[in-house]
Amino acid sequence: MMQAAPPATSADGRWLDLRLAPELFAADVPVADGQPACIVVQQGRIAWVGPQDQVPAIYAGLPAHEGGARLATPGLVDCHTHLVYGGERANEFAMRLAGATYEEVARAGGGIVSSVKATREASEEELIAQALPRLDQLLAEGVTAIEIKSGYGLSLEHERKQLRVARRLAELRGVTVRTTFLGAHALPPEYAGKPQGSQDYIDLVCREMLPALAAEGLIDAVDVFCERIAFSLAETEQVFQAAQALGLPVKLHAEQLSNMEGAALAARYGALSCDHIEHLSENGIAAMRDAGTVAVLLPGAFYTLRDTKVPPIDGLRAAKVPMAVSTDHNPGTSPALSLLLMANMACTLFRLTVPEALAGITRHAALALGLQHEQGLIAAGRPANFVLWPVRHAAELAYWFGHKPDCTVVRQGVIART
Amino acid sequence: MMQAAPPATSADGRWLDLRLAPELFAADVPVADGQPACIVVQQGRIAWVGPQDQVPAIYAGLPAHEGGARLATPGLVDCHTHLVYGGERANEFAMRLAGATYEEVARAGGGIVSSVKATREASEEELIAQALPRLDQLLAEGVTAIEIKSGYGLSLEHERKQLRVARRLAELRGVTVRTTFLGAHALPPEYAGKPQGSQDYIDLVCREMLPALAAEGLIDAVDVFCERIAFSLAETEQVFQAAQALGLPVKLHAEQLSNMEGAALAARYGALSCDHIEHLSENGIAAMRDAGTVAVLLPGAFYTLRDTKVPPIDGLRAAKVPMAVSTDHNPGTSPALSLLLMANMACTLFRLTVPEALAGITRHAALALGLQHEQGLIAAGRPANFVLWPVRHAAELAYWFGHKPDCTVVRQGVIART
Ligand SMILES: [Zn+2]
Ligand SMILES: [Zn+2]
Repeated sequence: MMQAAPPATSADGRWLDLRLAPELFAADVPVADGQPACIVVQQGRIAWVGPQDQVPAIYAGLPAHEGGARLATPGLVDCHTHLVYGGERANEFAMRLAGATYEEVARAGGGIVSSVKATREASEEELIAQALPRLDQLLAEGVTAIEIKSGYGLSLEHERKQLRVARRLAELRGVTVRTTFLGAHALPPEYAGKPQGSQDYIDLVCREMLPALAAEGLIDAVDVFCERIAFSLAETEQVFQAAQALGLPVKLHAEQLSNMEGAALAARYGALSCDHIEHLSENGIAAMRDAGTVAVLLPGAFYTLRDTKVPPIDGLRAAKVPMAVSTDHNPGTSPALSLLLMANMACTLFRLTVPEALAGITRHAALALGLQHEQGLIAAGRPANFVLWPVRHAAELAYWFGHKPDCTVVRQGVIART
Repeated sequence: MMQAAPPATSADGRWLDLRLAPELFAADVPVADGQPACIVVQQGRIAWVGPQDQVPAIYAGLPAHEGGARLATPGLVDCHTHLVYGGERANEFAMRLAGATYEEVARAGGGIVSSVKATREASEEELIAQALPRLDQLLAEGVTAIEIKSGYGLSLEHERKQLRVARRLAELRGVTVRTTFLGAHALPPEYAGKPQGSQDYIDLVCREMLPALAAEGLIDAVDVFCERIAFSLAETEQVFQAAQALGLPVKLHAEQLSNMEGAALAARYGALSCDHIEHLSENGIAAMRDAGTVAVLLPGAFYTLRDTKVPPIDGLRAAKVPMAVSTDHNPGTSPALSLLLMANMACTLFRLTVPEALAGITRHAALALGLQHEQGLIAAGRPANFVLWPVRHAAELAYWFGHKPDCTVVRQGVIART
């Protein structure tokens, strides 16, 4: 008996003639390399996955989608982005290359202050219109879950606006978005140079912004930029305490430019992740290991800043700290629009192995967002989020660079791209 | 009186409401920044370009194409690629990252020998099928002319096959392809380890392969890999003499790993370009300047090899040697599939200014191919090759990285992408 045809864009049905790379992407699935596999989608969720010749008879009536021997992977997860902001900083990029000094750039309105200004001046609709093409670049290569931080508003009104835009983007594209409140990203201009300005602003973050935005359901996690040029360890802890009081998980921009021992602090608060971590210490590694905190590597910023201090990959590997890889998309230090390119950079610049890089943009990235039961793995019971790639070897996903492969994307149970 | 509508894909007509960046891309056109511009295309060629309010009345009846205030640039030119080959080397990439030694990779069939083997084993049709998706990645971001080298066949039969494939790709996609014979790329395995093997092979290149393939019209230029691990200066000169005797222009893979003074030799033969040139000497710069030879910078290979020796940009700039930027697409040291990413890498890694990087992927790249009268500039009389970009500032083309912008591409008078 034929079942009724699903709506045109539904992914429901039997996805036939797929190749899986179980060792990389689907640890629980008993499919040998080269054996044709099948993913069964029902009502937007993965109902079954395994060898094609073992599909349970109960699914035989479902519509068939031809996989064409393509490689199926979980949807990609971009676990650290600042995707929503006003304007861009291309002019600043050009000025610096032309030899402008830091002061000249600042006088021309450059630096993070310019992004704060443009973000504050933009309406919610304008921010959506500007963020959508960037989001679409990432979605085109199979991103099915993405984290988006605030941090360019730096006031209750404008941080709210950024987070609302992040939620709207999720609706507009049917993509899983995790919002991170990063009020403690930079000192807003109106607090700069004031005595106690930094403490006053942290008080605002902890006492007003955080509770209000949490009450509005706009915050999935709380982040701080802990650095000499940003917020101190003590200020970071105040934000963590405020988050903890609200039951919100934390994460940290840690040890990017220097070792502040921020990672160890974050680990004490059970942080989901510590991100950047070029200068992470042995002590930080041990604390992250014990807390189950993910190390989020951001090679796009490392590359753009021409950094030379590579994160302690050997130490993280030895301690079995899960490593994720993300774009850190932002207008200043990483205008990156490809998670696959980040996998290539993680291999090339940080010497991750290919399996590490691929886990870094799938299951470990999901873990960094607390989405490990929803994303990052092809497994029965999860929402249907997977990508079919026109490659022979999974390693090609990290090997080629600068491409947007012609892939099929199933996102949240819908065929989002063919 | 209405003219007959052009065929659906023809670009003939008035392209209205464009923005130009004359200082970057169209030096001869009197359009002020911000002033709406118009490009008139007739019979596949640019008939007129200038301020929209000055379009000659004679063109008033031509169909209108809406530019939407997008930035128009010349079609991009990728002036150094090894795009046609069998297989890929993703497994080798993965093995190296997993710690395999050079010998272990070689024993597993890796290295350039594996590409030679796979290229020899592939049919013309198979090579086309494998190269097309790579070419399409480059075309999607506005490449309208591309150089394709042989050098993985290393025998008359298989070098011919590679060059024929390059010509076929031009027909299949309506893109300008310049073929470069690179028989002297590596010593083929059957000559390796033999006394006089290298000289014997160079004799074959000069006496048999070059004349035969030139007679078949398959060669637009001749290239050599001059390096301690490849061919000597003396061998290089033999190939240049053979090319000169056939009236073919030369170019050189020069000073990539060491200074061989290959650039000075190439300049003596009036080379179109010297490519890589990380170790280029003052002497080489002066020789290139005097000969009008283009410096082709290949940041994708620099990046992949984690090279630290940056080409002498200051010296090239001071000597006013034109600098081009290219992908060097190849399966071993630069599996790069984006010329825009190369512009970003040229800025980020080599500190080119944005105008230098943009000239590097347009008019200087055209010059490196001897196509300076056909490509790389929006000017009346040329074939219609241009791109409309959804960006506000030209600098954005080098600033963002890892994207394929949603651009309109007019290639050889045809709307190739909307
Ligand atoms: Zn960040
Ligand atoms: Zn090359």
